[in-house]
Amino acid sequence: MAGPLATPVVPGRGRLRPLGLGEVRITGGFWAGRRRTNATATLDHCRYWMERVGWIGNFRAAAEGRIRHDRRGREFADSDVYKLLEAMAWDGDRDPEIAALTEAVALAQEPDGYLGTAYGRPGQQPRYSDLAWGHELYCYGHLIQAGVAQTRARGEGELAKIARRAADHVCTTFGAGANDGICGHPEIETALVELFRATGEQRYLDQAALFIERRGQHTLADGEFGRAYFQDDVPVREATVFRGHAVRALYLAAGAVDVAVETGDDELLAAVERQWEATVARRTYLTGGMGSHHRDEAFGDDHVLPPDRAYSETCAGVASTMLAWRLLLATGNPRYADLAERTLFNVVATSPSPDGRSFFYANTLHRRTRGTVPAPDTESPRAQSSLRAPWFAVSCCPTNVARTLAALPTQLATTDAHGIQLHQYADAEITTGPYALRIRTDYPYDGTVTVTVDRTPAHPWTLSLRVPAWARGTAAWLTDSTGTRRPVTPGTATVTRAFRPGDEITLTLPVTPRWITPDPRIDAVRGTVAVQRGPVVYCAESTDLPGDRNVDAVQITPDGPLEDGPGGTVVAPGATTTPPADDWPYHPRDETRPAPAPQPTGIVLVPYHSWANRGPSTMRVWLPVEG
Amino acid sequence: MAGPLATPVVPGRGRLRPLGLGEVRITGGFWAGRRRTNATATLDHCRYWMERVGWIGNFRAAAEGRIRHDRRGREFADSDVYKLLEAMAWDGDRDPEIAALTEAVALAQEPDGYLGTAYGRPGQQPRYSDLAWGHELYCYGHLIQAGVAQTRARGEGELAKIARRAADHVCTTFGAGANDGICGHPEIETALVELFRATGEQRYLDQAALFIERRGQHTLADGEFGRAYFQDDVPVREATVFRGHAVRALYLAAGAVDVAVETGDDELLAAVERQWEATVARRTYLTGGMGSHHRDEAFGDDHVLPPDRAYSETCAGVASTMLAWRLLLATGNPRYADLAERTLFNVVATSPSPDGRSFFYANTLHRRTRGTVPAPDTESPRAQSSLRAPWFAVSCCPTNVARTLAALPTQLATTDAHGIQLHQYADAEITTGPYALRIRTDYPYDGTVTVTVDRTPAHPWTLSLRVPAWARGTAAWLTDSTGTRRPVTPGTATVTRAFRPGDEITLTLPVTPRWITPDPRIDAVRGTVAVQRGPVVYCAESTDLPGDRNVDAVQITPDGPLEDGPGGTVVAPGATTTPPADDWPYHPRDETRPAPAPQPTGIVLVPYHSWANRGPSTMRVWLPVEG
Repeated sequence: MAGPLATPVVPGRGRLRPLGLGEVRITGGFWAGRRRTNATATLDHCRYWMERVGWIGNFRAAAEGRIRHDRRGREFADSDVYKLLEAMAWDGDRDPEIAALTEAVALAQEPDGYLGTAYGRPGQQPRYSDLAWGHELYCYGHLIQAGVAQTRARGEGELAKIARRAADHVCTTFGAGANDGICGHPEIETALVELFRATGEQRYLDQAALFIERRGQHTLADGEFGRAYFQDDVPVREATVFRGHAVRALYLAAGAVDVAVETGDDELLAAVERQWEATVARRTYLTGGMGSHHRDEAFGDDHVLPPDRAYSETCAGVASTMLAWRLLLATGNPRYADLAERTLFNVVATSPSPDGRSFFYANTLHRRTRGTVPAPDTESPRAQSSLRAPWFAVSCCPTNVARTLAALPTQLATTDAHGIQLHQYADAEITTGPYALRIRTDYPYDGTVTVTVDRTPAHPWTLSLRVPAWARGTAAWLTDSTGTRRPVTPGTATVTRAFRPGDEITLTLPVTPRWITPDPRIDAVRGTVAVQRGPVVYCAESTDLPGDRNVDAVQITPDGPLEDGPGGTVVAPGATTTPPADDWPYHPRDETRPAPAPQPTGIVLVPYHSWANRGPSTMRVWLPVEG
Repeated sequence: MAGPLATPVVPGRGRLRPLGLGEVRITGGFWAGRRRTNATATLDHCRYWMERVGWIGNFRAAAEGRIRHDRRGREFADSDVYKLLEAMAWDGDRDPEIAALTEAVALAQEPDGYLGTAYGRPGQQPRYSDLAWGHELYCYGHLIQAGVAQTRARGEGELAKIARRAADHVCTTFGAGANDGICGHPEIETALVELFRATGEQRYLDQAALFIERRGQHTLADGEFGRAYFQDDVPVREATVFRGHAVRALYLAAGAVDVAVETGDDELLAAVERQWEATVARRTYLTGGMGSHHRDEAFGDDHVLPPDRAYSETCAGVASTMLAWRLLLATGNPRYADLAERTLFNVVATSPSPDGRSFFYANTLHRRTRGTVPAPDTESPRAQSSLRAPWFAVSCCPTNVARTLAALPTQLATTDAHGIQLHQYADAEITTGPYALRIRTDYPYDGTVTVTVDRTPAHPWTLSLRVPAWARGTAAWLTDSTGTRRPVTPGTATVTRAFRPGDEITLTLPVTPRWITPDPRIDAVRGTVAVQRGPVVYCAESTDLPGDRNVDAVQITPDGPLEDGPGGTVVAPGATTTPPADDWPYHPRDETRPAPAPQPTGIVLVPYHSWANRGPSTMRVWLPVEG
């Protein structure tokens, strides 16, 4: 039913052309399971909660004049209803649910297109009276993305019309010569470009470009977190690195790429690429997570990546994959897909529980104390819940995971004039134009990826396969359809020929566990190592330690071998130790201090995305080196 | 002029009896200079700023019915005026200034004793309508401390009467059977006990005991920071460690010690001692600083002591010395004086600039980026100013430093039935009862302390001298008045005899610089060393590096010797290094990565309390070990 354009991002230019949900299907393996849970549990869970906490009811309350007293949730609560609508559009056959939610939303739209339940009605603050914190344009952004998804996946419907009326209202209100403000939380920018792409209406692109150019002019107040929090400190094209609130920074960058691509603004595109490079080199966690500060949900300074205080918000992970995807489409550079893979397996996949009904908001890399299980039926007040929680007072993450998983197949592959490019590996089928490919793999548990050509044009074409950066130094091979086997290194491996139906190409990526060491400039993890197996980051969890000991008792002997354990685990050589009781934790280096001998043991490590599934525990990704 | 009781804490019981400002004079050296600056610059600076920002004017505005529109500052602004009044009382001849400020305060007191400019008048929130955040009782606490200081140092005056009326109002309003609330910020507890000590009025002690017992009963709301923030999570006598907001935790503990001492509640005293032991062993910075979180100004979990995110608020340092002093008086245990010394030299002495007109609010142990100089005449909005700032929107620290330095001589020594005890070393003179001692030292630059007995009773008595914990492993000696020299170890060294005028006792503490290593459980400083010389912690500052390089370029070779450099500096063997440019900061351990050779150099280290006096710089206390 979904057409070839059923995908969130459809650039008018760029190196690669995306495929739609009608062209790529995930048929099995890791992501198929995650997507099944998303479709059968998470979407209903989100709708249930938003009914329960009143965020859906807000629209009716607005229409019925009760909003002053009855409004529930934070100022941006509308946006989560829109994100759920977007997820439902990508997910498949949910027209009745979409129609019911759309009907509620429609009631609240005012004649001039304004739509928002937090401002502007009697007893509320006036419209646009608090652009820094009000999130009105941010909410439109998600409305527009939902409307575009509806159009592309299901055909234009009522939601698309509502979104377009809102977009027209935004262009009238915030166009050149009118209100010259910007929203404290970017999101409208990328959404307006996508609406331009979906409709061809130039004014949406112009408005998005205006919002991008206005940012960094010190329009927003210099409050407690400073202007960098809103990325209003420096113009987008002058910035050198992502900074401030991580989700805001990444959504803004995504919008800037979209504008740059559509307007042919190579300078702007290059600016975002530079910022991305600097951020990935110096401000990104091993998991791909971004954001080191709880206080302002923000990037830290260079190399400030404390594992215990990692915020690494799930939404920042989603935003990072959105940005990487846009940069990949624009440039074809496989580095963007490398980071997306890392983030998908270690942030996006970490957030939801196996049953799809609870979520991490922040994704710490080190938990020192056992937390308590959030009540199963209770909203969690804080991002810091120690286990996944069913819902949050600020609950941006569940619906963001839902829409990402629903649209995930479209991130697997692209096409261009030369052929097909594979970026992410999953058991999948691709059918586009003259091409049909079957991909069979148990990735990431196994690194063998077999591509079978089922349909092919008669002329020669090129199949490109990303060789992930994590495979550097491994014995990675590509076996082409003639049976010729050649070593490959990170980047892009290609096979160009006149394929015949039945041809098989096999990429072999050894997913053996490897010790990872951090840059010496990252103070917070000096003297530690981590373990990665393929793209998957591992961690030690107290549940697997002898006697369920605190994970901080672990010391690692990284000169010994890592071995595959049962059930996707890895066994590392190491010891547990108990430092002596001490009355003061700093001592002269020349002082001899007795310490009990470490107890050697094999340390069982589990994939980081699977931690906290067995009750309260302590956990660490970076493990201290013995001695 | 000041009498023997001119000191902030005068317990009715306990192991040691404090001396007053009339009994101890600091005559030269480190603290004499700091106190001179405090007296000649800081006190006037604080009064100037509080006139300028309107905090003194609030009292007049309240009296004149203008407060609704004219009030300035945060809800606790009154308290800083009271802390300045306390500092002025201890400082000496400031009666006219005290009278003028007191007159302003007096105007605002209501007939029933209520005194506060933030609540209760037309257009303001009602009195005591927000005990969690309103700080009304906290402000009374500082008012009462100022009143007691006035009484003890200058003789009872108007301020003491105002304080007593306020205290009576508190006892009426919050006594047994009345409002059973507690203040979100402890302080009233210790103040009421001191008022009991100064007046003999039992109801003040009873009220303080009530406040202590009420805490931990979940009276205050479970807000964003949780109840531990207010220490309202667990009753004081059941807690095992300090937690939550550091200043609140320490003020509360000080009040609990005061109540325990006066009521003979040894169980309560022991509970606080246990909490102190646990906190010093696991939640205290090398500097003595307390508080690891910026977000809630709070203690972290055990061993969570990140140097870069150290909050180590100046006021928490002050509060820690207040608590240590009370515990020392109650128990005689020199460990309390050890921590006080460390905190005085490395937190309290770090906050003010050499001119006494700007202050650190937070005392980080690692600054990665050069900050900007705060405008000399501007209020700083944030605790995170990179250099000392002249004033803050929340400006608790300057007045807290001022009152601490003004009363500092009283922390040097005590007396008991057996003689005199010296706890902190400074060039000083002590005259109390039949004793007169002269102390000559250049401590902490030099570790030789010579005590000359100028007046002595005829019978034998004991002179006790604290041997600091930092002297463990050094060749420390005590030479008594007979010329006999014996080695001493940390704790208390004593000389008991029938002294004669002119007798000299010399304590020799070698203040050679030493490498310090951290407990392996402190993740944030694994693989680093620090340098301490006597009680003084050192740091590397970019100003002293070749080419003014960022301090994060430093690597240390801790097997080499530390040497005294010029002007109180230390020279450490080490190197500077530039890690190669890198596109991703995590790499397989088995991967060979080229790196430029470190450039060997002597690293100049300066006392931590003297950093940031030479313009914007980067700084670190914990230095990475080479290789």
